[in-house]
Amino acid sequence: MKRYYIVLAAVLIIFSAFSDSNKLQAKGKAPKYIFYFIGDGMGISQVTATETYLALKNNYIGISPLSFTNFPVRTTVTTFADNRVITGSAAAGTALASGHKTSINTIGMNADHSEPLTSVAHNAKENKKRVGIITSVSIDHATPAAFYAHQPSRRMYYAIGRDLAKSDFDFFAGGDFVYPNGRSKTDTSLYYFAKQNNFSITRNATELKTVNTNNGKILALSNHIQNEGSLYYAIDRDSTHLDIADYTQKAIEVLDNKKGFFIMVEGGKIDWACHSNDFGTMLHEILDFNDAVKEAIEFYKRHPKETLIIVTADHETGGMSLGNSNLHYETRITLADNQKLSLDEFEIEVNKLKEQGATFEELIKSIETNFGINSVKELTLNTRDINLLKRAYFAFFKEDATAIARFKSDVLYGSNNPVVTSVGQIFSNKIGIGWGTGSHTGVRVPLYVIGRGSSEFINAKDNIDIPKILRRISKW
Amino acid sequence: MKRYYIVLAAVLIIFSAFSDSNKLQAKGKAPKYIFYFIGDGMGISQVTATETYLALKNNYIGISPLSFTNFPVRTTVTTFADNRVITGSAAAGTALASGHKTSINTIGMNADHSEPLTSVAHNAKENKKRVGIITSVSIDHATPAAFYAHQPSRRMYYAIGRDLAKSDFDFFAGGDFVYPNGRSKTDTSLYYFAKQNNFSITRNATELKTVNTNNGKILALSNHIQNEGSLYYAIDRDSTHLDIADYTQKAIEVLDNKKGFFIMVEGGKIDWACHSNDFGTMLHEILDFNDAVKEAIEFYKRHPKETLIIVTADHETGGMSLGNSNLHYETRITLADNQKLSLDEFEIEVNKLKEQGATFEELIKSIETNFGINSVKELTLNTRDINLLKRAYFAFFKEDATAIARFKSDVLYGSNNPVVTSVGQIFSNKIGIGWGTGSHTGVRVPLYVIGRGSSEFINAKDNIDIPKILRRISKW
Repeated sequence: MKRYYIVLAAVLIIFSAFSDSNKLQAKGKAPKYIFYFIGDGMGISQVTATETYLALKNNYIGISPLSFTNFPVRTTVTTFADNRVITGSAAAGTALASGHKTSINTIGMNADHSEPLTSVAHNAKENKKRVGIITSVSIDHATPAAFYAHQPSRRMYYAIGRDLAKSDFDFFAGGDFVYPNGRSKTDTSLYYFAKQNNFSITRNATELKTVNTNNGKILALSNHIQNEGSLYYAIDRDSTHLDIADYTQKAIEVLDNKKGFFIMVEGGKIDWACHSNDFGTMLHEILDFNDAVKEAIEFYKRHPKETLIIVTADHETGGMSLGNSNLHYETRITLADNQKLSLDEFEIEVNKLKEQGATFEELIKSIETNFGINSVKELTLNTRDINLLKRAYFAFFKEDATAIARFKSDVLYGSNNPVVTSVGQIFSNKIGIGWGTGSHTGVRVPLYVIGRGSSEFINAKDNIDIPKILRRISKW
Repeated sequence: MKRYYIVLAAVLIIFSAFSDSNKLQAKGKAPKYIFYFIGDGMGISQVTATETYLALKNNYIGISPLSFTNFPVRTTVTTFADNRVITGSAAAGTALASGHKTSINTIGMNADHSEPLTSVAHNAKENKKRVGIITSVSIDHATPAAFYAHQPSRRMYYAIGRDLAKSDFDFFAGGDFVYPNGRSKTDTSLYYFAKQNNFSITRNATELKTVNTNNGKILALSNHIQNEGSLYYAIDRDSTHLDIADYTQKAIEVLDNKKGFFIMVEGGKIDWACHSNDFGTMLHEILDFNDAVKEAIEFYKRHPKETLIIVTADHETGGMSLGNSNLHYETRITLADNQKLSLDEFEIEVNKLKEQGATFEELIKSIETNFGINSVKELTLNTRDINLLKRAYFAFFKEDATAIARFKSDVLYGSNNPVVTSVGQIFSNKIGIGWGTGSHTGVRVPLYVIGRGSSEFINAKDNIDIPKILRRISKW
């Protein structure tokens, strides 16, 4: 009989353990700390090429994984919009934020603009979490806006800025507003509205470091703006500039509290670089994005059972291919290191040269300096390249309108300058990168997830599934 | 006390249930029936575009899933070869078959060709399973060869054919051998060697249906060969032709036995169509591949606890993008239905026209007939298209060697004919498909898995992980 009691005791202990663990699971299932990283325009090609580049830099063939590509959940999701196969950042951002498909250019509203949509950032706030929204582009740009604003068009920057200013979210960080005083430049400043709503505005690293956040909210902007309210490209900036890793670090610091937080971080200029078909610049944007994710991973390591990290993209940009018609099966992407600045900054150089009435030889000199052209055999200009550059030079420097029109590229952001476009094409050709378009594509994008509740994301098939699953595991 | 006995009894029942289910798992964990589908050149872009096409055909924006894209495991794997970032079908096939990276063009051997590598098909055979190898291209082509042959070069077709002929595998099906009597055409026929080794050779649907398989093995070939020992493209064939779905069905029928089977099925001409940047043809190849997977799924439904289906690709081909520089954000891929034949078959038409001394207008007429050009607004030739076609016409029809050289495309398989290449480019431009290369790319490829042991494949990161996991769950 004693034996039975022992067995029974053992059984009861086991049962109680089961029961405890079940309770723990149920109680603890909702992630306390949520990171939502969105690489704008970051397709699987972009990710694989960056990891291949890192491996080649270390002298081996293969990949050197980014911080997130070995997350336990690694899948892909479809991205189509309500009314278009190839989505845009507004519709995709709204899908990723709200779990609803919407129409192209719509921010946080349904397709016909009759209803606002609630984002998971709003859900987090309603559930007492502190909320941060971070981007490398303007803080009123489509992707961040989709998490806090409700406007029929992404182009309504001032109205989106008003939505930000009146927001109860705790932390915003990015470049700047695109139109702080509206398109007319005469409207009441968005900074004024933000301050009225208890936001402390910082403009540089020192201000961000020392800002008093006792009971207030932060709007972290930057004095270093490259264009359209965006931070500088990583390839172009110096060490005094703030980046999204700095912002992520600060967000973690100020948002941590007993109810947890929700932090969205966008790598916004991966997309811009890919619109310009500018591989070297894209590489550094992805590495920058990777650095921001690393901040979250460091936090995750300290709170592994309470933290969830989601990394995804809104769409692919550029139809980029690791391999092209020029090099066939060869890969020379480490030659991208010869590129000293983005094509955007190079355009400024080219404009200066034009003002100075530079000769074709002087233009070539600049291309040599900025892209390592003619410095190694693989980057040496051939007759076809020189002919293309000559055509571009005469079109642009000599202002031949017909020739310019012939060169007009399909780049939405970035350059329509024939010289810049030609240099970009020649450089991509020589390093083994192909581009199918200057716009977005409709291919599935990657989804990587780690931490509390991550296993549920294995079921994600479409971008709207991500916020839906997040809501389910968070019981929102 | 009685209460304790009841509790105890209940507990013991529960424990025994646990224990039983554990035993069942352990005993039944190895899949009895294994399907291994490889879409040659089938990247995520190709898959997404095909599903988008199917949805648009049904008048909605989104995707209509293929049979395998909603499998519970949906991830991506890297593909690099031992000595090259951008892999080829031999090195990738060997990786997928053996679990070892090897050098470009190597079949079933290590990188320096000092050792043969064992494929999972060999493992299956050693473990008493019956084995089938199916492809839509020649049966001695790189991908199928990687599962049964060991040769330093994929181009050693006759030696690979000898490996097939002496194989103890039970079922081979494909187009034909590339060189049944060697390159010299004077060597002993591979058919002879195969028959010596107990293979019954079939050449059409009737023979395949009626072949006596009591104790013998089957080598199913086809009398309908398009080129290089391959079956016709789906877009080009008629209903009398055998396809890989027919072969898969037959393999299931003849290989089913109490020890189970291993069946590898390659969709080999997805790759060929993408090398030719021929979207319309690619679509039908993927749908064909999908039909073959459906045969496996039907079998799986009858044996869900014993069957494992793996669907993957060896590499992406063409750097294809769903979206291009011409249409920007617009998608018109259902216009691909206007294409009546593959670019390969169109080349035969163009060669005939040339022999007949056809005029440019007659060439245009043929393009109109075969591609629906000028039949709808979206497919109407503009001045630039006409100029391109005129250049191509004069280069090829008037045999201008310099002009032909200028047109020389980078297409490995398929056409170097300037007219065909130009028509292909114009057609892709008009339907919204971009191409980065005529070769392969280094992007990760999709992996879909369902059935017994499938959850283990969530851990796959690289192509060699697939056979490694298969071995682990099969205890080989």
